[in-house]
Amino acid sequence: MTDITMIEAAARRLQGHIRRTPLLGAPQLDQIAGRRLLIKAECLQHTGSFKARGGWSAVSALSPELRARGVIGYSSGNHAQGLARAAAEQGAPCVIIMPSDAPALKIANTRALGAEVVLYDRANESREAIGEALSKERGLTLIRPYDDPQVAAGQGTTGLEIAAQAAEAGITRAEVLVPCGGGGLTAGVALALQAKAPEMRVHPAEPEGFDDTARSLASGRIERNDRLSGSLCDAIMTPEPGAVTFPINRLLCGPGLVVTDAQVLRAMALAFLHLKLVIEPGGAVALAAALFHGDKLEGDTVIAVASGGNVEPAVFADALKTLAG
Amino acid sequence: MTDITMIEAAARRLQGHIRRTPLLGAPQLDQIAGRRLLIKAECLQHTGSFKARGGWSAVSALSPELRARGVIGYSSGNHAQGLARAAAEQGAPCVIIMPSDAPALKIANTRALGAEVVLYDRANESREAIGEALSKERGLTLIRPYDDPQVAAGQGTTGLEIAAQAAEAGITRAEVLVPCGGGGLTAGVALALQAKAPEMRVHPAEPEGFDDTARSLASGRIERNDRLSGSLCDAIMTPEPGAVTFPINRLLCGPGLVVTDAQVLRAMALAFLHLKLVIEPGGAVALAAALFHGDKLEGDTVIAVASGGNVEPAVFADALKTLAG
Repeated sequence: MTDITMIEAAARRLQGHIRRTPLLGAPQLDQIAGRRLLIKAECLQHTGSFKARGGWSAVSALSPELRARGVIGYSSGNHAQGLARAAAEQGAPCVIIMPSDAPALKIANTRALGAEVVLYDRANESREAIGEALSKERGLTLIRPYDDPQVAAGQGTTGLEIAAQAAEAGITRAEVLVPCGGGGLTAGVALALQAKAPEMRVHPAEPEGFDDTARSLASGRIERNDRLSGSLCDAIMTPEPGAVTFPINRLLCGPGLVVTDAQVLRAMALAFLHLKLVIEPGGAVALAAALFHGDKLEGDTVIAVASGGNVEPAVFADALKTLAG
Repeated sequence: MTDITMIEAAARRLQGHIRRTPLLGAPQLDQIAGRRLLIKAECLQHTGSFKARGGWSAVSALSPELRARGVIGYSSGNHAQGLARAAAEQGAPCVIIMPSDAPALKIANTRALGAEVVLYDRANESREAIGEALSKERGLTLIRPYDDPQVAAGQGTTGLEIAAQAAEAGITRAEVLVPCGGGGLTAGVALALQAKAPEMRVHPAEPEGFDDTARSLASGRIERNDRLSGSLCDAIMTPEPGAVTFPINRLLCGPGLVVTDAQVLRAMALAFLHLKLVIEPGGAVALAAALFHGDKLEGDTVIAVASGGNVEPAVFADALKTLAG
């Protein structure tokens, strides 16, 4: 189980390899939010998302023997790139299993980071079966995107930075909003803040229709989403809270906040305008919650994690259209 | 005349009020540039551009008496916002004289930062006459956008940070490309690097048709542009090099690099894709030069300043279109 000791150990392994991303704000956003609003800009992280932290943490936690054999991951998105970069820079072979209908750009990016991409047919093949066969054959270690204690520990280094950067700005109390898919970032940040900034409380933010963590926190047990697709927020459309992450989040987080796709697009546009940041839909749910659901928050300061920036140009153009007129 | 002592004094006054913006890079951009490429992300500065530095420097250098009377500036763009923020946070009244046909968004932004905006009719009125009358009447100090030693000293703090951040990354030799309008940022950065990183050389970057500094550096005397409008790069369409800045740049910089509007749009799109940064056209000329004019550069490292991010959504959407297909 991930704990603060593991997060601090991960932070030492990440040193020099992962960016300390800035904590940014703008008076125009404070005004909309009705309180001081700070954004932890993880979209500026290597590979464009916080997943570079978890990937680095997991690969660097392996024994030299296992690392030399290599790692394997299933992902069509940010975890693929984060893991591929970590593996390449630490000399570990890396296989990423992606659906053959994944966007060409994401396949190309993952290959450009040095990974071997194995494509599978979503309709007729099982990625688990392919992955298991490859793992056995080559001795690869499977790195899960969130249900892995060392991955969650890596994501938790975001929380260590938030605590330190907020303290530098004279802030010790805040509501901290975190985009939540499987809950690895949420759990890692919550554990880090429990230890380093105990007056901050974490609220997971999710898109409408994919509010499994909000509902699970409310009911106290794991609740599933009805759908597996259909949100703009592709990065955080997970079926249910993780088995490793939910017990932590149940203890430390909530209640969850839920935003619409329209609010997400508007938040992306406002980040463009006032922060000069490119945030992807799934990365903008916490900012959207801070801007448009302030009535559900307390206190005079909110910190929103902008967890990634890997957005298709056409989707970003749609966000810009909300600024017209 | 601005010198390193003034820049270091400005850095002390700016401490805690101006962001130390990150130095970012991406392997995909290194590949296009054919060498290591680092971007100094001044688009993430307060008010969305490096002008917040010069504004703060100039206002904080005034005597308490002059500061209490207030400051005045002519600008329809980034200098207006940088000066307005500096004045507001230091308790100085601020008047900005803007053309009545300036974009409504820029007028609104300047007002939101607390400045009194005085509009003038570009065709029938002289902004200098209006400014002079107001200055005399109220005892306001005129802060010029670049031809002011304390403004250039403030911009030079960007160079101090580049030297320190490059050294942290193990880099002491590099070509440093700086977007150049009147030359205040170029001169400030060049002076800072001469003192702190003498193996770095500054090259001003300009848009086609507004390459007055490149031509002036080549001829050794001040050359004017034929046109006063007509580039996408509105932030750096100045008529000629500054009287304060050119003597410095002539001594320390060059040769200049010149890019097309199409290259600027492409550079903005690549910064969106690989850096998750919003850069405005005038702010992207140095990045465009690094990406597309590498044949005119030497060495294995280039640092490009991304000087601002205040771009209209429609222009940014045009940049994104270069990624289609």
